[in-house]
Amino acid sequence: MTDKVWGGRFQKGPEEILDRFNASLPFDKRLYAQDIEGSMAHCRMLGKQSIITEEEASLILRGLSEIRQEMDAGTFRFEGSFEDIHSLVEKALVARIGPAGEKLHTGRSRNDQVALDTRMYMKEAMGRIDSLLLEMQKTLVQRAEGEIEVIMPGYTHLQRAQPVLLSHHLLAYYEMVKRDRERLQENLRRVNVLPLGSAALAGSTFDLDREMVARELGFDRISENSMDAVSDRDFVAEFLFASSLLMVHMSRLSEEIVIWSSQEFGFAALPDELCTGSSIMPQKKNPDIPELVRGKTGRVFGHLMAMLTTLKGLPLTYNKDLQEDKEGLFDTIDTIEQCLTATTRLLQSIRFNREAMRRGVEQGYLAATDLADYLARKGVPFRQAHEKVGRMVLLASEKGKELRDLTLEEMKDFSGLIEKDVYEWLDPYHCVQRRDLPGGTGPVAVRKQLQKAKEELGV
Amino acid sequence: MTDKVWGGRFQKGPEEILDRFNASLPFDKRLYAQDIEGSMAHCRMLGKQSIITEEEASLILRGLSEIRQEMDAGTFRFEGSFEDIHSLVEKALVARIGPAGEKLHTGRSRNDQVALDTRMYMKEAMGRIDSLLLEMQKTLVQRAEGEIEVIMPGYTHLQRAQPVLLSHHLLAYYEMVKRDRERLQENLRRVNVLPLGSAALAGSTFDLDREMVARELGFDRISENSMDAVSDRDFVAEFLFASSLLMVHMSRLSEEIVIWSSQEFGFAALPDELCTGSSIMPQKKNPDIPELVRGKTGRVFGHLMAMLTTLKGLPLTYNKDLQEDKEGLFDTIDTIEQCLTATTRLLQSIRFNREAMRRGVEQGYLAATDLADYLARKGVPFRQAHEKVGRMVLLASEKGKELRDLTLEEMKDFSGLIEKDVYEWLDPYHCVQRRDLPGGTGPVAVRKQLQKAKEELGV
Amino acid sequence: MTDKVWGGRFQKGPEEILDRFNASLPFDKRLYAQDIEGSMAHCRMLGKQSIITEEEASLILRGLSEIRQEMDAGTFRFEGSFEDIHSLVEKALVARIGPAGEKLHTGRSRNDQVALDTRMYMKEAMGRIDSLLLEMQKTLVQRAEGEIEVIMPGYTHLQRAQPVLLSHHLLAYYEMVKRDRERLQENLRRVNVLPLGSAALAGSTFDLDREMVARELGFDRISENSMDAVSDRDFVAEFLFASSLLMVHMSRLSEEIVIWSSQEFGFAALPDELCTGSSIMPQKKNPDIPELVRGKTGRVFGHLMAMLTTLKGLPLTYNKDLQEDKEGLFDTIDTIEQCLTATTRLLQSIRFNREAMRRGVEQGYLAATDLADYLARKGVPFRQAHEKVGRMVLLASEKGKELRDLTLEEMKDFSGLIEKDVYEWLDPYHCVQRRDLPGGTGPVAVRKQLQKAKEELGV
Amino acid sequence: MTDKVWGGRFQKGPEEILDRFNASLPFDKRLYAQDIEGSMAHCRMLGKQSIITEEEASLILRGLSEIRQEMDAGTFRFEGSFEDIHSLVEKALVARIGPAGEKLHTGRSRNDQVALDTRMYMKEAMGRIDSLLLEMQKTLVQRAEGEIEVIMPGYTHLQRAQPVLLSHHLLAYYEMVKRDRERLQENLRRVNVLPLGSAALAGSTFDLDREMVARELGFDRISENSMDAVSDRDFVAEFLFASSLLMVHMSRLSEEIVIWSSQEFGFAALPDELCTGSSIMPQKKNPDIPELVRGKTGRVFGHLMAMLTTLKGLPLTYNKDLQEDKEGLFDTIDTIEQCLTATTRLLQSIRFNREAMRRGVEQGYLAATDLADYLARKGVPFRQAHEKVGRMVLLASEKGKELRDLTLEEMKDFSGLIEKDVYEWLDPYHCVQRRDLPGGTGPVAVRKQLQKAKEELGV
Repeated sequence: MTDKVWGGRFQKGPEEILDRFNASLPFDKRLYAQDIEGSMAHCRMLGKQSIITEEEASLILRGLSEIRQEMDAGTFRFEGSFEDIHSLVEKALVARIGPAGEKLHTGRSRNDQVALDTRMYMKEAMGRIDSLLLEMQKTLVQRAEGEIEVIMPGYTHLQRAQPVLLSHHLLAYYEMVKRDRERLQENLRRVNVLPLGSAALAGSTFDLDREMVARELGFDRISENSMDAVSDRDFVAEFLFASSLLMVHMSRLSEEIVIWSSQEFGFAALPDELCTGSSIMPQKKNPDIPELVRGKTGRVFGHLMAMLTTLKGLPLTYNKDLQEDKEGLFDTIDTIEQCLTATTRLLQSIRFNREAMRRGVEQGYLAATDLADYLARKGVPFRQAHEKVGRMVLLASEKGKELRDLTLEEMKDFSGLIEKDVYEWLDPYHCVQRRDLPGGTGPVAVRKQLQKAKEELGV
Repeated sequence: MTDKVWGGRFQKGPEEILDRFNASLPFDKRLYAQDIEGSMAHCRMLGKQSIITEEEASLILRGLSEIRQEMDAGTFRFEGSFEDIHSLVEKALVARIGPAGEKLHTGRSRNDQVALDTRMYMKEAMGRIDSLLLEMQKTLVQRAEGEIEVIMPGYTHLQRAQPVLLSHHLLAYYEMVKRDRERLQENLRRVNVLPLGSAALAGSTFDLDREMVARELGFDRISENSMDAVSDRDFVAEFLFASSLLMVHMSRLSEEIVIWSSQEFGFAALPDELCTGSSIMPQKKNPDIPELVRGKTGRVFGHLMAMLTTLKGLPLTYNKDLQEDKEGLFDTIDTIEQCLTATTRLLQSIRFNREAMRRGVEQGYLAATDLADYLARKGVPFRQAHEKVGRMVLLASEKGKELRDLTLEEMKDFSGLIEKDVYEWLDPYHCVQRRDLPGGTGPVAVRKQLQKAKEELGV
Repeated sequence: MTDKVWGGRFQKGPEEILDRFNASLPFDKRLYAQDIEGSMAHCRMLGKQSIITEEEASLILRGLSEIRQEMDAGTFRFEGSFEDIHSLVEKALVARIGPAGEKLHTGRSRNDQVALDTRMYMKEAMGRIDSLLLEMQKTLVQRAEGEIEVIMPGYTHLQRAQPVLLSHHLLAYYEMVKRDRERLQENLRRVNVLPLGSAALAGSTFDLDREMVARELGFDRISENSMDAVSDRDFVAEFLFASSLLMVHMSRLSEEIVIWSSQEFGFAALPDELCTGSSIMPQKKNPDIPELVRGKTGRVFGHLMAMLTTLKGLPLTYNKDLQEDKEGLFDTIDTIEQCLTATTRLLQSIRFNREAMRRGVEQGYLAATDLADYLARKGVPFRQAHEKVGRMVLLASEKGKELRDLTLEEMKDFSGLIEKDVYEWLDPYHCVQRRDLPGGTGPVAVRKQLQKAKEELGV
Repeated sequence: MTDKVWGGRFQKGPEEILDRFNASLPFDKRLYAQDIEGSMAHCRMLGKQSIITEEEASLILRGLSEIRQEMDAGTFRFEGSFEDIHSLVEKALVARIGPAGEKLHTGRSRNDQVALDTRMYMKEAMGRIDSLLLEMQKTLVQRAEGEIEVIMPGYTHLQRAQPVLLSHHLLAYYEMVKRDRERLQENLRRVNVLPLGSAALAGSTFDLDREMVARELGFDRISENSMDAVSDRDFVAEFLFASSLLMVHMSRLSEEIVIWSSQEFGFAALPDELCTGSSIMPQKKNPDIPELVRGKTGRVFGHLMAMLTTLKGLPLTYNKDLQEDKEGLFDTIDTIEQCLTATTRLLQSIRFNREAMRRGVEQGYLAATDLADYLARKGVPFRQAHEKVGRMVLLASEKGKELRDLTLEEMKDFSGLIEKDVYEWLDPYHCVQRRDLPGGTGPVAVRKQLQKAKEELGV
């Protein structure tokens, strides 16, 4: 006896080693709900088209429904060894309802069935991920709103560059996440296509109503070419890429949180309940979450590279290589869900040390650009102004001073155009306030960004 | 004297080794036209906003225009060593028009400038690539139309599976390319955002009219957050991914052409003018183009992985690591343009061996599925029908026959339901004709696909 | 109550979400045997050095031994939630033997402990993998010996190029596997280094005898720098690379088997018991094993890329990111073991169709190079000889003939130097026999390769 | 007229587009010296074996020598368009010396020739790289020796963990580079194999003396199997991996230098001459070199992934895909040479701020582990000692104190075993000194590491 859905042509059964190597059940059992739901829609359509009788259809639907309930409840008994979730469900159905079950696969192949299941699974997962991204955006907006007065050093090259609002910094991540959601939504449009009806590769000889199945299962449209439909995994690769870029963003945020949590920066503190300690060093409180998120970036990149490699150079149509699409996909979904949940939780509870941030803007000549702009406004060509201020920084640095500590006389040595009003230009708060052009870090500009974000989020 | 646009703060000039290591001019000189065009728009805006005078603006515009013309004509003389194309253009301008030139950089940083140039360059390149993809789609449609009568074996696992129309096979690639174009168009929307006005990271203190610059340069909209704008390279990574998936498709097509061109398959012949020979084997005629395209897939994947790796874990905002965005991008653009041009040329001139393809459908039991469907229509549950046909194939194979060579009696041993009309079901042409459901390989279905494609292409 | 091995410093326990995110137990439990064995060696050393008493040492050793036995037997009861296998074992020990168990971690940190466990696990796995590679080499040699008379077309660009011996072709893979084994053995030397005694990062204040632990656990030597030892994962990346290249070789072999199994080539047949069928097409017999092996290449590349990405840019010393080293490593080990087992099984049972291979050398002008060599020996400069033969191939091709079918007169038109003995030069068997230089495909040369291989394998 | 070394068999010349697409000359011209040197050795062997006459051999050698000199001097005139450097040299030779030049290619194919050239090029480049790595090791040792008294915080999770010697930290990189050199030397053994004599794929019909050519060109041994020899690019992939891991190390060091150069850490200052500034912010002094090195890590990973992808699934033997091996290889060599040179220069001139480092060890409870060890020595089980010290840290932290600021009474509340000698255990210098076990950070242990390193370097 065989548990295979093929075999008439074979004289010997496959060896156990191949069985194990070949089997996808250990991972594709995750698709059971989609597999059954898809089969039920297929069955209803077969009935409606009179390809099977209404009685057969009812019998099959009842059988599938029972299996689904048992699987949901965890009471389903697996017996025998199965290649994959599709065989398992079909065999279980036949065992329950007899020969009518053997009609379910009419007009269908595992090639289009597995593509269907995968797409259905992704649609659900992508919905969950979008919600998590939305939640993260809301958290970013909320924190940005709460910290709207907080000034901190903005960095380029990890060197203090110009003062910025912490809110402005947080909203940069809002923009990244916005793009992530866009990409996933566009990806979803290409996921949301029904492959069923493509059969093995060439379409079916039966008069299938593909549009009906698409409607039943909530697909936007049906695939246009059966050979493409059974060999296409673009939508998986695309999801893995969108996830990779999302992880780039998470890794950048995580890196910042790790750096900010160092004793040297002291810009942020994570709550105890989100940290862990050391088995040997009693004083340690480690930012495990952002480190793990940063580390898991590699895993997602790896899954992307794996899928692309697997697809490279495959002739049409279905090849067994394509079975490799699922584990990386599932792990990416799990990883993304975990990382987003953990990071949002972190963003909600991280404490920013406003005092340390403020101190950070007072040292390091962060107003130098404003001083150059001051001179430029007085008519000094910007390139000359830049040069002059560079030399003023050098002087101040040699004297162990900040720019604002230089006397007016000292400054006038560089340019007679400098007047007393220069000191206002050297104040970090004013530096920020002056940058109210669209997209800038000025409080008005940032409030506008916040306002726009809230409109986008509908909050 | 220094050719740097910074330096006032420095006591010693950078060493030559750093100069070379640091310099991006060898590759970013490719951006000269975008750099100048962007500077001209910035200058017009500075003038309009009275940040510089109208006279200064005119002087600058004239100077830039001259430099552009000389560079276009190849007569521009590079003297001195420059870090990058931005410094070079600015220094050349000052050398030509004097101090007014030193005002051009007012309200701008190289951080937003390089993001601008890259985006402008990509917009143009992506336009060219879209045209090449369109051309390939047209070629696929044209060849599919011309070969509409040709029947060939469809494969799964590189084993003959079911007869299909060659046109159907070709149109599978049409679908892939359609998705490629969609992805690039979506990518373009995120490229088409003006970063200028973000300055170094925090925005400018000057009253810049960013919307005006966006209009002048044909950007859809302006960036929303300056810190994001100068550290964002998502749009580059996204292009590299869209290109990677495009190369997956090209590699699949190339693999098929290589296999089809083998003596064993003999399905296709490439014209002499698109092949090369061997330095030692006088008889060889090698399918170099598809092999190179397939091989170059690795290069594009590599550039994607490079960009993702570079971005991973970078704190905000600009870091020098980001300079690594350009070489991989440029090489990807060049590679894609070459591969598309070469492959389309190949598709235009490849000769399909209809006879060899036809012979291919006559051996290998490709009608077995239809025979199972035949039985299923007569009431045999599909799973049993599949089993019966499997055993019929085994019998035929042992007798060295095809299914259609079995006698009616031999077949009736497997099922009394089999009648004389079965022979029609075993004819490969009928196998194809029976698959006229949407997306199937039947001639009516394929003509519908063709019709839809032509509408999409506007031909 | 907490199951953590840290916690005194914390006011709140970590949240459940973090617990799950942070936990490595689901995958690192695979290391239980190594963890316990390593702890036992550490304990014996602590006793010997009088850091703990002999009684404490005995108690700990007994406790660990019991836990090990229960885990081996599958009777160990996990209670509570644990971060990782290290905490679990330690807590289980304390639960069993009381406070003495709390002394086990003296002079040790999880940072050096996990590095130890991973290295021990790899040593064992790499031993198994080497055996599998050896088995594959033996199989290749055995098949090469059995097929020593078989001639087949050798390909470049998947075009027939020159006749070769099938044995020669098989021995090419012997060479690749030989390099794989070399790389893994070199890798092993760097795995085989004891990190224990590095503690958290700086070494221990206790007088640990690291050399003793190394001897007990069979390590070649001890690590030289504690900061390096706890942050080094080079040996993992190196294993992933050696595995990637091994998969390149398996994918090349698999591609060949897939192509050879096609109806068009017909060079090879896989036994039924190593193939699977189709759920819809009754006639199909698919080469699933080589397709899966080829497909799984992507997965291993992905793990390599993941590890490299995770390591990129990590400051010293241990960072939580490094926890990401294990899942990809474990999956790679499993994948390699499966692919090698399956491929060797395939190589043992694949049937080569000698007749089809022979026919392959008779069509396609495979003797053209020999004809050019023939002319070169008669004094025609090779480049001219090549040109002449190229034109002869063209003539023959136009006449629908092979070179050996041309008359002597037809050939003499190209060169008067051609004599009757040319026909011997056009015989594929002679083509092979003439290539007996070292490394060539001549039967003598191939027998020498075989002899050398057998010496290397000690068979 | 054609510049091809094939063509007799072709009726039409290849199109220009293919010429450009196909041509490797733009990048493989870099191999000219190796190509000519290899040809000269081949020619001498042909002469010695009487395959060509001594006169012909002399003529060819003279011609090649001239071409080499002109190419070295930059006076060689390229005329016509050539596929690759091999054709160019051969055609130039024939143009110079006539028909004798047409005999050079006897017994050789471009397939074994290009493998030869690539291997020769790598041997030289790997020699240069080894020297650069050696130089870096010497610099690390020199700096470690010079800073032997300097104490700094050692980090895990970028949190202060335990005091370490700066020298110990630097020597961790010494160990990494040592492994890099090992890997490259092992790689070199597999590069150092002569492929010439494999001809197109099957070996030659001429009586070539391969061992002689190997000796002339300084190869250790000859390849064992011609089909493997022309399709093997393992040695390239292996070099790209060894380079990737090397870049991991450089990226880790670079990340540390960037972090240490921040105003917040202030541990290190780069000399002006190795930094650059900002085009807009006059005060900026940016650590461009380590950022670029870190960023270029992606590029090298990308080349590795590209090569692996290209090799995946290629059937034997030579396929045009393999032409893609060179550009990534050359760019990796250049990148590695630049990054090593720049980083060593940086290491030579970086100034460490000993005061800032010292301050770093005095805050953050870095002696907590030692306090736990102190208690453990007094008999408190380590796990309990760890717990107690954790609570002591919490108390101290609430009081705004370090551990050493707690009174003896405060400490005794946690354990009556604590005596006055505890304060010595809390002193960071003593923390370091206590770790003199092999590999530890104690001054004696570090001096031993230094001694061993110097012996390894022979300095």
